[in-house]
Amino acid sequence: MNQKVGKASVRLEQPVYIMQSASVVGTKEGEGPLGLLFDKVGQDDMFGCKSWEEAESTLQKEAVGLALEKAALRPEDISYVFAGDLLGQSMATSFGLSTYQIPLLGVYGACSTCGESLALGAMSIAGGFADKVICVTSSHFASAEKEFRFPLDYGNQRPLSATWTVTGSAAFVLSALPREGGRKPKARISAMTIGKVVDYGLKDSMNMGACMAPAAADSLEQHFVDFASQPKDYDKIITGDLGKVGQRVLIDLLRKKGYDISEQHMDCGLEIFDAASQDTHAGGSGCGCSAVTLSAYILKQLEENNWRKVLFMPTGALLSKTSFNEGLSVPGIAHGVVIEAM
Amino acid sequence: MNQKVGKASVRLEQPVYIMQSASVVGTKEGEGPLGLLFDKVGQDDMFGCKSWEEAESTLQKEAVGLALEKAALRPEDISYVFAGDLLGQSMATSFGLSTYQIPLLGVYGACSTCGESLALGAMSIAGGFADKVICVTSSHFASAEKEFRFPLDYGNQRPLSATWTVTGSAAFVLSALPREGGRKPKARISAMTIGKVVDYGLKDSMNMGACMAPAAADSLEQHFVDFASQPKDYDKIITGDLGKVGQRVLIDLLRKKGYDISEQHMDCGLEIFDAASQDTHAGGSGCGCSAVTLSAYILKQLEENNWRKVLFMPTGALLSKTSFNEGLSVPGIAHGVVIEAM
Repeated sequence: MNQKVGKASVRLEQPVYIMQSASVVGTKEGEGPLGLLFDKVGQDDMFGCKSWEEAESTLQKEAVGLALEKAALRPEDISYVFAGDLLGQSMATSFGLSTYQIPLLGVYGACSTCGESLALGAMSIAGGFADKVICVTSSHFASAEKEFRFPLDYGNQRPLSATWTVTGSAAFVLSALPREGGRKPKARISAMTIGKVVDYGLKDSMNMGACMAPAAADSLEQHFVDFASQPKDYDKIITGDLGKVGQRVLIDLLRKKGYDISEQHMDCGLEIFDAASQDTHAGGSGCGCSAVTLSAYILKQLEENNWRKVLFMPTGALLSKTSFNEGLSVPGIAHGVVIEAM
Repeated sequence: MNQKVGKASVRLEQPVYIMQSASVVGTKEGEGPLGLLFDKVGQDDMFGCKSWEEAESTLQKEAVGLALEKAALRPEDISYVFAGDLLGQSMATSFGLSTYQIPLLGVYGACSTCGESLALGAMSIAGGFADKVICVTSSHFASAEKEFRFPLDYGNQRPLSATWTVTGSAAFVLSALPREGGRKPKARISAMTIGKVVDYGLKDSMNMGACMAPAAADSLEQHFVDFASQPKDYDKIITGDLGKVGQRVLIDLLRKKGYDISEQHMDCGLEIFDAASQDTHAGGSGCGCSAVTLSAYILKQLEENNWRKVLFMPTGALLSKTSFNEGLSVPGIAHGVVIEAM
């Protein structure tokens, strides 16, 4: 039997396998330190479309298409797609995925959505409700700036605590079977911890790392408690997009709770760009940031046995332009998934 | 074992029980035909708050609080809350539920979200990942008009095909156990069908019934095919908020597919208001419409054994103000849940 563990976690009786994945990114991400690892780098960030939102839809469409192709599967082989993005009413998902005609379960957890989609996708397989599912998330620098901040033409100055929304999407094919047509999975999902809304009352949408760090600390502590585990039990503890400022806050907060993750911690937002040369300030962010880093870099490390077990925990800042304009705080949320090498 | 059935459906090995539910609505809903059945009717639609969005958050908060109270449970008894609303970045959920500190899985399917939350909530219990979960959704007339259409002060004229967004929220406590402290459940969830995005290219956000009807027809046909069932196998086939226009389109579309649901069909949007006297045109709509009608009216009919088995299928229109302003179509989606009397 699958097992609920502690307050907020699940241990899967049988692991769920990540059969394949694919990542599609924009030009800036292609020029970054992980540039050579992505499956596809766009020639320009419009991806042949007329609007930023349509471009983001195309990112999701292409990521799913590539993942299916790499897994030698057709859309009709997939039971459900768990998908989401940052735009109002998950617009990139609604318009990007309709072409595949796969039953769709829309999810929203801001930039933690990649973790949420993997957790729910794995549950749907481990529970016997599906054979194969796809989990996909995306973000786009320009559609996110339009959705949450200022028109790009306005040339708003960005403080050093601001992050740079990643233009990218990654899709993951999950399966109940460890082998399919002789193919070995990339990795396996063995456990998960579902986060709750954590609100320290911070209001600065230009410092989302600090807004999300308390949620990451809360979910990490909950995970360690639920599984009676310690940071050293993981080769890497990977947050989504805390960036430079959020990383410092997270490590400090967890130290106060009695956990030192400074050796194991890695943040996707700090890996994807070279902040000094790419002018991305605190790091990368967005629903696509953790997703493409997982697909291109983290799964590769697990496949090559450089790491055996990681705790992947994307972090989300639950703000909207309405909540910001009404002067509300920016609460955070973080969902964790334990991913192990085969 | 739980069983995937056909292309898009699931049959639960053990049913999941709806232990309790609670509904909170606005004044107009309180004056409608179901007015006396709701657990709480607000005195005014601000619910003591400073903004419409905060009022909608309060709806969710109160619905969850009431459902917990009626079930004699504390927030810490609940494994997860599956929640969503119509606002950008699910703002009502993020700010309404943080007080309970229950692990949160945000879901989005426009006005189909109530169906999606119940389907995923039931899966999480049937799969052994949770003991009890809460599913909650909301909508608010004024926050929805602001989010999707025009400022209320502008006094935009509404065509007769337009629906009226319901101000309301309902929360459902699902449990693996058929009895808890001597309490009998209200009903049980035995199966579900997950919908896909269906886009007929319609662009009229003032006629969402017609935009959503093709999705409802698609999911209903899929359900009948997956379970080799017929309309007569259900006492009621209940859509969320198609309204008058959408109902006609749905019945016509399904006739062409060889299914006549005219005897069994009921639409929550047509039940909640008296269109003639309440000036709501085509009917009620919104994430809250199907949720409060399920809680206050449908579950009551099942409890009183007036109905034995219903197919509850909320319908969603996947539009955003950005997609509308960019001239895109309004695709639909519909998720179905089979609910049976005890």
